Amino acid sequence: MHKEQRQRAAQLLDETGVELALFTDHDSVRWLTGLNLPAPALLFFERGSFTLFADEGFSDASSFSSEPDCTHISFVGYTIDQPIDAPSRLADALRESLANGSAQSGRVGVEDKSLPLALCQTFLDARPGCEPLSLEGSLLPLRAVKTEEELARIREGFRLVKIGHDAGRKAVRLGQREIDVWTEVQTAVEREAGKWMQMGNDCIVGHRPANMSAAPLDFEIIANDALILDLSVVVDGYWTDSCATYYAEQPTAQQFQMHKFVEEALAYAVSLIRPGVVAQEVDQKVRSFMANGGYEVYPHHTGHGIGLTGHEEPRIVPYNQERFQEGNVIMLEPGIYIPGVTGIRLEDAFLVTANGAEPLSHHDKSLP
Amino acid sequence: MHKEQRQRAAQLLDETGVELALFTDHDSVRWLTGLNLPAPALLFFERGSFTLFADEGFSDASSFSSEPDCTHISFVGYTIDQPIDAPSRLADALRESLANGSAQSGRVGVEDKSLPLALCQTFLDARPGCEPLSLEGSLLPLRAVKTEEELARIREGFRLVKIGHDAGRKAVRLGQREIDVWTEVQTAVEREAGKWMQMGNDCIVGHRPANMSAAPLDFEIIANDALILDLSVVVDGYWTDSCATYYAEQPTAQQFQMHKFVEEALAYAVSLIRPGVVAQEVDQKVRSFMANGGYEVYPHHTGHGIGLTGHEEPRIVPYNQERFQEGNVIMLEPGIYIPGVTGIRLEDAFLVTANGAEPLSHHDKSLP
Repeated sequence: MHKEQRQRAAQLLDETGVELALFTDHDSVRWLTGLNLPAPALLFFERGSFTLFADEGFSDASSFSSEPDCTHISFVGYTIDQPIDAPSRLADALRESLANGSAQSGRVGVEDKSLPLALCQTFLDARPGCEPLSLEGSLLPLRAVKTEEELARIREGFRLVKIGHDAGRKAVRLGQREIDVWTEVQTAVEREAGKWMQMGNDCIVGHRPANMSAAPLDFEIIANDALILDLSVVVDGYWTDSCATYYAEQPTAQQFQMHKFVEEALAYAVSLIRPGVVAQEVDQKVRSFMANGGYEVYPHHTGHGIGLTGHEEPRIVPYNQERFQEGNVIMLEPGIYIPGVTGIRLEDAFLVTANGAEPLSHHDKSLP
Repeated sequence: MHKEQRQRAAQLLDETGVELALFTDHDSVRWLTGLNLPAPALLFFERGSFTLFADEGFSDASSFSSEPDCTHISFVGYTIDQPIDAPSRLADALRESLANGSAQSGRVGVEDKSLPLALCQTFLDARPGCEPLSLEGSLLPLRAVKTEEELARIREGFRLVKIGHDAGRKAVRLGQREIDVWTEVQTAVEREAGKWMQMGNDCIVGHRPANMSAAPLDFEIIANDALILDLSVVVDGYWTDSCATYYAEQPTAQQFQMHKFVEEALAYAVSLIRPGVVAQEVDQKVRSFMANGGYEVYPHHTGHGIGLTGHEEPRIVPYNQERFQEGNVIMLEPGIYIPGVTGIRLEDAFLVTANGAEPLSHHDKSLP
């Protein structure tokens, strides 16, 4: 799995002139292995080959050894025979592994926002001739272009997202609370998946004072209420995202107008997406569309990439001069919020293709 | 909140001869503040006073400034105006804060299994006369003795645990799957709490090949099945734990016998608990009790402490020479497992008191 990711990373390291690297950022390790490992885990790069250090309790890690130029070393996780201390066991495993290698000098690439001081010291004690060089964040641009393996997970996520939304739409009834709606959504998704699923994000009635982004609480759905259901389902580490707005009764004239306008804003945003377009330009154009419609412009992003996290490149925000590339998976999510009264947001996911954008999300966002 | 925790830590630092310390272990920061913060967060100790660096999106952190000798500094989390990069924003905030302080030299206590290399460098650039001294793990023994504030959270957790088990017992029916039972449990707990709850641990039918510890999947409850429901509900960062075993039909003679024996083993274990008793002795005695009953001895712990994590001191395992202290919150959980056939585990929580053990969990573990 994720051979292409390792090839891209190896090329980057080659260009950087780095022969050794310690990947400790958990998302980096997951991206380079394709394994949705528990933390802590370490991926050691040495002249084109990768060694994964992973908790022995995560049995899937053993498959890594069958990849070309890849090795897997496990360390003790849970045990009744000594204190549970994964960071020390990982350091022990690294120390032992390095003792068998040849002495080296030169720069060792590190992710210094996640590399713990003690693990760095373990490495430098074994390789005193090495000097850390920060590679922090260098994989992020590579992660923005998805492979077929990644898309398969993301597509499965969107299949579950649709099931969650179908349940959410039915659960929005007068007198139900946000948490009641949420448990219906969660139950539908987990029963379909046949296992626990990591899920987010917002489930929020229009009459809450801050009605843009919040986890479900015990606010009741009241007369003329709207409910924003912003739903992510994470499949094998890969995030999805989506939003629809539901109504307990027939929407008011104001809600109807707002909903229709946000549908238009979303369609307009989608029409702008193709490779080479600059993210901040899409952001600016959609914000202008909202303002020209006479609505207050949402204070959040116009959209964002997804992958091993819920918000990643390309972010569709005012400062971002990145250009869309084929293989980006992006969200678009215009909204209108009248605090304490009503809110509406609609969000879809797209794969950036050679000619435009392929829809990945398929939930029903229509008015009742 | 958690003034007593800070006093205990300050005393420890004083005894260690450390005037400065950087707490970066997320559990340390949560224990010293009483705040269930998102990561990353940093607590800086300087001659008796504490400064908390926390994401501005976590509004509860501002309350920390109202504690005596405590300061709160926020850093930018989510923003559309620059890349989302909490570790860098935290480092910026620390750098700025240190620029206003006086130069110092000497040892700075660090948690070197969690302190990122970059953050350490930020500190040392500002305080070049300082030298890191590992305080790793030094708070763990202090955390084993709970305060009234912590017990209040834990007691609320066990109230929810009982509601979860009541729902679980009802949901165990022929043809239901593990995940179906779990979603009933989860829904009952979250509806009662009126919000999302972090929950674990096992929901597993007896006929699974590995029937001791596993998350729910789509295994169906079949004739003569047992289901182990091992349930944790986390309240404001504080874990609970519990286990009961349910039956889809009347238990078989073997299941009845096993269940009765584990009830006796649990009662025997409880009878051994009081301050001053050595953890490994309880572990050994309960294992002997199982073996003397003619059963294979469970391969897991006999029990463990709980708190900000699900497994902490005092662990009731073969190596542990720690003595129980008044204020420990411990779990006891004997079990018998016949792989692929049936399994039984019963688990209760206790507060170690001056004279013995006060039950904290109140779920029904009886035979049907």
